[in-house]
Amino acid sequence: MKVEHSKNIVSHIVQMDGAVGCHVRQLVNEQDGAPTFAMRQFEVEPGGHTPRHFHPYEHEVYVLEGEGVVYEGDTPRPLAAGDVVFVAPDEVHQFRNTGSSPLKFLCLIPNSATGKNVTVVPECSAEATDT
Amino acid sequence: MKVEHSKNIVSHIVQMDGAVGCHVRQLVNEQDGAPTFAMRQFEVEPGGHTPRHFHPYEHEVYVLEGEGVVYEGDTPRPLAAGDVVFVAPDEVHQFRNTGSSPLKFLCLIPNSATGKNVTVVPECSAEATDT
Repeated sequence: MKVEHSKNIVSHIVQMDGAVGCHVRQLVNEQDGAPTFAMRQFEVEPGGHTPRHFHPYEHEVYVLEGEGVVYEGDTPRPLAAGDVVFVAPDEVHQFRNTGSSPLKFLCLIPNSATGKNVTVVPECSAEATDT
Repeated sequence: MKVEHSKNIVSHIVQMDGAVGCHVRQLVNEQDGAPTFAMRQFEVEPGGHTPRHFHPYEHEVYVLEGEGVVYEGDTPRPLAAGDVVFVAPDEVHQFRNTGSSPLKFLCLIPNSATGKNVTVVPECSAEATDT
């Protein structure tokens, strides 16, 4: 059994293309012996966001603190503490902090996500209208 | 995509043998299309507890509110908001609320848990010493 306060687990900056002001803690994963899925805690700074992206695996999300939106494709859906989000495989999504304090949420993925393609999608249609 | 506040999801009393003052909300599960694992939110009343039990699948737990302990076999390990617990398959465990407000936590399990054996273990050695 592992019992640990989340603050004692190291936080890394998310280096992925399209991520701004995002930090992640690997709370439980395969290195702990977790056989099926991994629990990560994200913290997004005010004004920050995750990439607009999709991938062939799901997210299960629980909002812990802060205010933001999750984009379902082009549609922003407001988020606050206590909200639950299920992102189905291949849905385009993005989390954005729209508040003045950190947006903190759990985001769980299956272990089978490892090595799967993640596709970053442009933020808006600017490129499309330029061409 | 599902976006819902956890309080809008129906809460059921946990009817299992050995459960006292436990309520559960199915936040995300197979009925939502979740392919791999399920997110449940438990609320344990002051003085309440989950069964002392084990099963051949894991738990990934995040404590949201309140104070309690998780028993790792016979060893109580204190819990507070922000704590993470990984219970490996077949570990004997029990969550108890030792505070004066509800103990609220997320507890995630793989979909493959459905139909698997859950074994309730006596609370203490009282019966053993009686015989």
